[in-house]
Amino acid sequence: MMDNLYAALVHYPVVNRQGKTVGSALTTIDLHDMARAAMTFGVNRLYVITPYPDQAELAREVIRHWTLGAGSRLNPSRKQALERIRVTDTFENAVREIQTEHNRPVTTVATSARTHKKTISPHALKQKLAADTPCLVVFGTAWGLADELMHACDMQLDPITGPGDYNHLSVRSAASIYLDRLINS
Amino acid sequence: MMDNLYAALVHYPVVNRQGKTVGSALTTIDLHDMARAAMTFGVNRLYVITPYPDQAELAREVIRHWTLGAGSRLNPSRKQALERIRVTDTFENAVREIQTEHNRPVTTVATSARTHKKTISPHALKQKLAADTPCLVVFGTAWGLADELMHACDMQLDPITGPGDYNHLSVRSAASIYLDRLINS
Repeated sequence: MMDNLYAALVHYPVVNRQGKTVGSALTTIDLHDMARAAMTFGVNRLYVITPYPDQAELAREVIRHWTLGAGSRLNPSRKQALERIRVTDTFENAVREIQTEHNRPVTTVATSARTHKKTISPHALKQKLAADTPCLVVFGTAWGLADELMHACDMQLDPITGPGDYNHLSVRSAASIYLDRLINS
Repeated sequence: MMDNLYAALVHYPVVNRQGKTVGSALTTIDLHDMARAAMTFGVNRLYVITPYPDQAELAREVIRHWTLGAGSRLNPSRKQALERIRVTDTFENAVREIQTEHNRPVTTVATSARTHKKTISPHALKQKLAADTPCLVVFGTAWGLADELMHACDMQLDPITGPGDYNHLSVRSAASIYLDRLINS
């Protein structure tokens, strides 16, 4: 199994409904759903990125409950999933950590409901993974990743579309679909 | 766009951790995530199935808030999505309603993390949809659909798998992936 696929859930910088750059609050169910999807599709580590110490502590409390506390005995499969999460303060720190572990540059791949920059298909990204490139797929909370983070990424995955033009999936749904496409395309 | 694809989120009969048939409580975020995925992938209607009047009323309250109340003005895209939900007490009633509207037998398709019966690929199910067959894809809450409902369905979609054997996706993730596979395969 690959060990070079990573995911990140970003709480800052993201945009609000008005397109203004903001930091979002943690939604604990994101951690559960995305860790379970990460575990299913062989993501090495899911970074939960927030610069707010109280939010980081909340995330760590949830993780402790399910990996070390009562939750770990109640639900071992949830334990396995949440063990994949690492909480960190910035996107740059997550990239640096992956780069150090693999001793190779990391390909950073944004996701969005709209096309912002050069896109890559899940199949093409899978080929990069097969060539041992460490890849970090980046998901935004709130109304999506802020432009500055979108620009900081090397590329963007093809937006998820259906038969119409509705493009308001939850980040939990979008991340699950992207990981499935990436592994099973 | 097709009008013959339907989804159902079942709260009874499902199984608990011990495999015993139970009814589950409503999780309101399921309604949001699954309605948004339904809207994205052109599902005509999402049935929320619960035999418990208080749970049905809770579901209707959530739907009213977002389709008629303050939520509908705050977030028009959420309104559009939640308008796709219909709350009903049994699986049989949902099937009957679809059959009456289309005046054709409904193909009912279970989903599960494990293989219980003859499976169909998303691509083959898409061909049935293209041939105008009304299809209802059925998702279980808790630890999944009870055997009696699994048996009542005509067939089952291929389980979602990754590179390993972990198969504990949330119903929100699983439904999103299945609908994407169904429409985009």
